[in-house]
Amino acid sequence: MTVKTQRILTGHRPTGPRHLGHLVGTLRNWVRLQDSHECFFLVADLHVLTTDYQNPERIRANTLEVVADWLAAGIDPERSTLVLQSAVPEHSQLALLLSMLVSESRLHRVPTYKEQVKQLGIQPSLGLLTYPVLQAADILLYKASVVPVGEDQLPHIELTREIAHRFNSLYGDLFPEPQALLSTMPRLPGLDNRTMHTSYGNAIFLRDSEEETTRKVMNLFTDPHRIHPTDPGRVEGNPLFIYLEQFDPDREQIEEYKNRYRQGKVGDVEIKQYLAKKLNQSLQPLREQRARFISQPAYLREILYHGSNRARQIARQTLEEVLTAMGLTLGLALQPENGQSSPSAGAFC
Amino acid sequence: MTVKTQRILTGHRPTGPRHLGHLVGTLRNWVRLQDSHECFFLVADLHVLTTDYQNPERIRANTLEVVADWLAAGIDPERSTLVLQSAVPEHSQLALLLSMLVSESRLHRVPTYKEQVKQLGIQPSLGLLTYPVLQAADILLYKASVVPVGEDQLPHIELTREIAHRFNSLYGDLFPEPQALLSTMPRLPGLDNRTMHTSYGNAIFLRDSEEETTRKVMNLFTDPHRIHPTDPGRVEGNPLFIYLEQFDPDREQIEEYKNRYRQGKVGDVEIKQYLAKKLNQSLQPLREQRARFISQPAYLREILYHGSNRARQIARQTLEEVLTAMGLTLGLALQPENGQSSPSAGAFC
Repeated sequence: MTVKTQRILTGHRPTGPRHLGHLVGTLRNWVRLQDSHECFFLVADLHVLTTDYQNPERIRANTLEVVADWLAAGIDPERSTLVLQSAVPEHSQLALLLSMLVSESRLHRVPTYKEQVKQLGIQPSLGLLTYPVLQAADILLYKASVVPVGEDQLPHIELTREIAHRFNSLYGDLFPEPQALLSTMPRLPGLDNRTMHTSYGNAIFLRDSEEETTRKVMNLFTDPHRIHPTDPGRVEGNPLFIYLEQFDPDREQIEEYKNRYRQGKVGDVEIKQYLAKKLNQSLQPLREQRARFISQPAYLREILYHGSNRARQIARQTLEEVLTAMGLTLGLALQPENGQSSPSAGAFC
Repeated sequence: MTVKTQRILTGHRPTGPRHLGHLVGTLRNWVRLQDSHECFFLVADLHVLTTDYQNPERIRANTLEVVADWLAAGIDPERSTLVLQSAVPEHSQLALLLSMLVSESRLHRVPTYKEQVKQLGIQPSLGLLTYPVLQAADILLYKASVVPVGEDQLPHIELTREIAHRFNSLYGDLFPEPQALLSTMPRLPGLDNRTMHTSYGNAIFLRDSEEETTRKVMNLFTDPHRIHPTDPGRVEGNPLFIYLEQFDPDREQIEEYKNRYRQGKVGDVEIKQYLAKKLNQSLQPLREQRARFISQPAYLREILYHGSNRARQIARQTLEEVLTAMGLTLGLALQPENGQSSPSAGAFC
């Protein structure tokens, strides 16, 4: 048995059930990383509020959906720690403390912030501006040294490194500067060829039935310039083949289809039917697991309870170190968590 | 015995020992309010970090200085609750949640923020921008209905009311919209006639000795146009008389001095000597109490421990209501504070 020396922190916002984009882009990678790293997987429900705070009833349901999807995809609670962000108060506490060490103008330069402000078309909230600082707290609380991310999240890891560096230089070395582990997985296109996204209506969900999945595959965007099966088609960047490469282990069959597609010797419908079959085969075991998990919410809560409790031991330790470093030793000493009973050394006289 | 129906939340940042400005401007008022209101007095150490995070060793010492000064001035821990902000994690937690409900641009319009940015001449931190939201959390956590403040803090109370209103309209009535109780006390001028301020080097501290106090009074700014004791002097706005009115109960003597001062029939030195005597008389009981308190740090910690613990029961209750309203019921249920042991309804099978 190898000792896992490197700790990973990564996670998802529980915005809804997971889809194939999550499976291909992150989950499969996470499942593998469990072999080599000590993994913390965060259900980042506080982060949901930065863009969606008006639907309280959704968050709870979505949280259990996400955990069921994770477990079904192969996240193993015996080997990894699943953490629910809102169950660990230290995330909020550390974020507030770190907010003293980062300038407002630095946060305005975070590309995801600028992008969100543009996309949402609303007045950004303080919470949205704070988002990357809370994310830094998520990572630093567990002193994670590796953070698997997509390319769009790289600026957040860079900011986390800056904050860790600033803290260390002010108060002494406490935090490792975490490394981003950039996903080598392609972004899976959605049904409409935009990035697959829960809110775009272009996703195939892990919880979709065989019939639903087939129906969606039959509507998949392919080569828009190909009108007839006899037109030569474009293979590169064609969602049909991107999907096939992810979900069909039969490389020879894929190559054959590619050749016929390029030559106008196979129709979209035939390949879509083949893809639907292969995709459904590939997803079937996951779907069965998922159905079992989602029918047992008490079990899912137990997983989160144990993971969050385990995480909290570490989070608490880190927060104590931070409070001490920043001079808040008195508040720390007085917190009931420290099991201090009344420090009555004798009443005042 | 009257039932105190209205709850007050107010406090000080522990930036250093309290001075005469604090005594006249807030403490005397707080002491009186204890008779009519249920009072929570907050030692706001997290707020110190928004402007001073590089001197960790100072915060702990300053916290005990502030508590000793409060008690000496007449804050009564038997009747009121003294809370150390960093000992109650719910302040940070609620601030983060409320940050979702307030726009960044709204915070840019807070006058104290604009003023601080101008004065500090540095890049403002995220923490500085967040300051009024943390203050709103301080108030709303205890559902205080009255907040005694100076005029400069009025915009923060207005923001707190807005946040309470927004929360209530989104999730249902939870928070009272607190009323500001504007201090009718004059701002006490410092030795140089600017506002008395710890960092201006113009303060007479409650802990100053009799000799030190006398020395400072002899350097007090008076009427700058008066060169000789025989010049007619200006009484209005003259620190000499502002101090006398605060610390000398002998109204007749003050009137006599005023008349002689206007007519050029008394020297500054004579009045300063009189003021020093009266001021020292007035402060003597407070100084003795203070010396006793500061020599018993264990007692001061005990006061804070009991107060913070009592406060935390209420804070916890409010935070649970907020988490529930915002949909974070799962995180709430899983927090160990809820005394939930493992929810093992049976392992997954």
